[in-house]
Amino acid sequence: MSSLPTGRFPVPEIADLPQDIRDKISAVQEKAGFIPNVFLALAHRPDEFRAFFAYHDALMEKDSGLTKVEREMIVVATSNANGCLYCVVAHGAILRIRAKNPLIADQVAVNYREAAITDRQKAMLAFAMKVSEDSRSIDDGDYETLRGHGFTDEDIWDIGAVTALFALSNRMANLVSMGPNDEFYSMGR
Amino acid sequence: MSSLPTGRFPVPEIADLPQDIRDKISAVQEKAGFIPNVFLALAHRPDEFRAFFAYHDALMEKDSGLTKVEREMIVVATSNANGCLYCVVAHGAILRIRAKNPLIADQVAVNYREAAITDRQKAMLAFAMKVSEDSRSIDDGDYETLRGHGFTDEDIWDIGAVTALFALSNRMANLVSMGPNDEFYSMGR
Amino acid sequence: MSSLPTGRFPVPEIADLPQDIRDKISAVQEKAGFIPNVFLALAHRPDEFRAFFAYHDALMEKDSGLTKVEREMIVVATSNANGCLYCVVAHGAILRIRAKNPLIADQVAVNYREAAITDRQKAMLAFAMKVSEDSRSIDDGDYETLRGHGFTDEDIWDIGAVTALFALSNRMANLVSMGPNDEFYSMGR
Amino acid sequence: MSSLPTGRFPVPEIADLPQDIRDKISAVQEKAGFIPNVFLALAHRPDEFRAFFAYHDALMEKDSGLTKVEREMIVVATSNANGCLYCVVAHGAILRIRAKNPLIADQVAVNYREAAITDRQKAMLAFAMKVSEDSRSIDDGDYETLRGHGFTDEDIWDIGAVTALFALSNRMANLVSMGPNDEFYSMGR
Amino acid sequence: MSSLPTGRFPVPEIADLPQDIRDKISAVQEKAGFIPNVFLALAHRPDEFRAFFAYHDALMEKDSGLTKVEREMIVVATSNANGCLYCVVAHGAILRIRAKNPLIADQVAVNYREAAITDRQKAMLAFAMKVSEDSRSIDDGDYETLRGHGFTDEDIWDIGAVTALFALSNRMANLVSMGPNDEFYSMGR
Amino acid sequence: MSSLPTGRFPVPEIADLPQDIRDKISAVQEKAGFIPNVFLALAHRPDEFRAFFAYHDALMEKDSGLTKVEREMIVVATSNANGCLYCVVAHGAILRIRAKNPLIADQVAVNYREAAITDRQKAMLAFAMKVSEDSRSIDDGDYETLRGHGFTDEDIWDIGAVTALFALSNRMANLVSMGPNDEFYSMGR
Repeated sequence: MSSLPTGRFPVPEIADLPQDIRDKISAVQEKAGFIPNVFLALAHRPDEFRAFFAYHDALMEKDSGLTKVEREMIVVATSNANGCLYCVVAHGAILRIRAKNPLIADQVAVNYREAAITDRQKAMLAFAMKVSEDSRSIDDGDYETLRGHGFTDEDIWDIGAVTALFALSNRMANLVSMGPNDEFYSMGR
Repeated sequence: MSSLPTGRFPVPEIADLPQDIRDKISAVQEKAGFIPNVFLALAHRPDEFRAFFAYHDALMEKDSGLTKVEREMIVVATSNANGCLYCVVAHGAILRIRAKNPLIADQVAVNYREAAITDRQKAMLAFAMKVSEDSRSIDDGDYETLRGHGFTDEDIWDIGAVTALFALSNRMANLVSMGPNDEFYSMGR
Repeated sequence: MSSLPTGRFPVPEIADLPQDIRDKISAVQEKAGFIPNVFLALAHRPDEFRAFFAYHDALMEKDSGLTKVEREMIVVATSNANGCLYCVVAHGAILRIRAKNPLIADQVAVNYREAAITDRQKAMLAFAMKVSEDSRSIDDGDYETLRGHGFTDEDIWDIGAVTALFALSNRMANLVSMGPNDEFYSMGR
Repeated sequence: MSSLPTGRFPVPEIADLPQDIRDKISAVQEKAGFIPNVFLALAHRPDEFRAFFAYHDALMEKDSGLTKVEREMIVVATSNANGCLYCVVAHGAILRIRAKNPLIADQVAVNYREAAITDRQKAMLAFAMKVSEDSRSIDDGDYETLRGHGFTDEDIWDIGAVTALFALSNRMANLVSMGPNDEFYSMGR
Repeated sequence: MSSLPTGRFPVPEIADLPQDIRDKISAVQEKAGFIPNVFLALAHRPDEFRAFFAYHDALMEKDSGLTKVEREMIVVATSNANGCLYCVVAHGAILRIRAKNPLIADQVAVNYREAAITDRQKAMLAFAMKVSEDSRSIDDGDYETLRGHGFTDEDIWDIGAVTALFALSNRMANLVSMGPNDEFYSMGR
Repeated sequence: MSSLPTGRFPVPEIADLPQDIRDKISAVQEKAGFIPNVFLALAHRPDEFRAFFAYHDALMEKDSGLTKVEREMIVVATSNANGCLYCVVAHGAILRIRAKNPLIADQVAVNYREAAITDRQKAMLAFAMKVSEDSRSIDDGDYETLRGHGFTDEDIWDIGAVTALFALSNRMANLVSMGPNDEFYSMGR
């Protein structure tokens, strides 16, 4: 029943990894109580590991006009549309915990229109889905719609950038067959 | 946070319902400990209620070459593809309980190819997805493939019929904005 | 040239069928002059047969804010989009007869926007196509649009429910390779 | 109930048309007993009229490894996929007459896989659908498949060229809202 | 590196071609300095060659409310959406030359929304893309939108007809694997 | 005619940027003779700038079983499918220069199947397109196919990772309306 970090590539021994990556992994392990598989799967390529988490932290950890809950909503909604098991399950856990809401992740994953969230958040997710699935058609009208919901242009960059980062992440996870840790499935429920 | 049986139609008072429907509802309430919202939402139309549950029970409760777990897998996989919140959450709960596996529902919902299930079950779900999304293209080759995995023609009917019933069910739930009961989200985890 | 009830499953001998199913078949044969193949194909599974026709009659035979002609339009338009030969041909015949219009079925099947029907009926079919192809995106705006054409919420349920039932029916017909009776092709022309 | 040649552009008076176009129209009128609307709709642009019918006759009237019945099958199948009412109804009539088969047009239009035609003809239509919907993906393997069914490379050109011409024709008919003559609906049934 | 006129059919010797086709080819060769491959590829079928260029010249060479530059924009945008290498490269060259703009062809091919063109031209291309990809959904509202940008109904016919002709042309080029002449790639840059 | 770095966000003054970003920009300016707009557009967010180029360089500049030419092919093919003007034009230039082939970029952008590249490279691009458009369906069979063309598993990671990075990049460019520098259009032709 348990899932491997990745079904298609070797997972490195932590002792063999560069020190900065070991430190990053230790830190997350201390905080979460386990090592999320994405850290092990991507450590196969240290330079890509560093760039990915730098990008991730730049978008997901900083202060923003979007709450951390809202940023996780974007991850969960677009990752389900991309069929990315790791991202839906792992970020679904983070979303539940950050929102202190055991129901929200499944709602946002399956159909955000039916979720118990605000109209502003639904507009945010509608735009995220457009960035994910049809970015060529983004136009000034989309910006106007979002401004009408109170989003600044910097917020719109954030919506788009989080979506774009997980467009990358979803494809990497599906490429290597990355499985979520068993712990994630029940966290925050 | 709690979800209504349906956001778009009135929910009847149970006392006002015909006796056979009240009996059906009582029976499920006794078994589950609560009334699943689909019973309340569809009771708005007693004749459709009766036909729906007759169809449901004929397919989901009978003996079949497919296990009950497998039939719930079909529901969960195709319902997520259709964006049906009620069906993914409610039948995800049933799937976890019947499979005695807290992880399987999320795996099958998001991407059955990544689920910890057998190759035979993956072939079953691949066919269910074709029935759901492109039934016009079903051909004898599909039957051959499934027979190669040990499915009988009666099993194939069952795969297709369960998929077809939830093609109906998903559309009804989205039509009336049916919300899953809060209880379902955490059952079997 | 003639089509079998189903190309993939055995067709039961009528004499071997349960009495209630024989009665149902006798009644339709008396009315139509022949036994529509759907009755023979589904009789392979008596319980599913009973549930299907109970559902069908509950939606298609009752009084409704939608005329019977309008309900048949929904069947014909969505069934062609699903590539369901049986439903387009059999319900096309019923549509022509009920509408006393030999041209309407082909118009509605191929492109309802080009059919000689009312704007209200085109709005009804646009919504039916959305229920058929993208039910996840149904929202309150769709209800508002339909109300603007004079549809009640009960009518909207009917549009959605007829579409949903034939989402099931189309998939079953394609699953078993159900052929329309030769008689249907020319009825009402 | 009757349909106009085109709902969006003026239909020229025949007396005002150039002599060669009047002759072409007279010839088809004599043969069919009425003037098919495509001749009236396209006569609005005499040079395009001449080019269209030159192209049409070069493909549809010549000797070919494809029978005229087969070429009409291609028109009917791809035109329904494009939602072109005129082409499905008018060429459906021609197909029934040429095949001396009252059922074949509806079968080929709705789902050629369910039609009472040969496997070779189904392979032909599968390729025509690919040319119609995804021509960028045509590859040498498609040619090999068709050669395996006995088609020559000249036959393959014919399949593709008929499909391509009606890709044009379907778009023109939908552009100008071209309606089929009432006569076509029942011809050959 | 150099491309053949067509990878799948024999290219005729010019000396063997009918005189009118040789004259047409000589004229274009004199003007362009080389023979565009489409002339050689289609000469395999003289009657289709004549009809194609008659259609082409009737739409692309005449006076119109659309400039020749605008007509070439339509060709380039829709041909890239169809994956037609010949049409994007050859008509991209013509577009650059006619517009005296070395950048415009790549912009219009990849994403016309990002091109340095007028809003009126973007509306024209949005409609062309609809004719190309979803002509069944063309409705009076599309005409109203275009009229609001100053297009006459004759202009709208031209937009649709150019799109329709290249729907044909793109499919023929992909069918026969038609390669652009090397000269086209750099013309007008 | 000239394009701005981004149409939707302010472009920072270089003098105001952090030193490491100024150094990176100076280095590329010295090499290319101008500052590619992506450097200016992303400098609006220094942390994201650093992560993006770290990721980019980790994949595009290192030694790999894929040549640099092949990696640029992946960028160009998938970016055109995503309608990303900046990436097609800028990486098209790099592809032409690295391949010393003035024709290859347009071929790969519009339809790689028609490009003058090896079968191995076509298999690489077919997989890149799957990663880009349908990563959920990646399976072991895809790996087998690529191994059959001589790709190692590390090469497959590279194909997928380059595709994934530009899935991000394409969405960011469309989000901010990033225009390519005029210089790129003609480089290497």
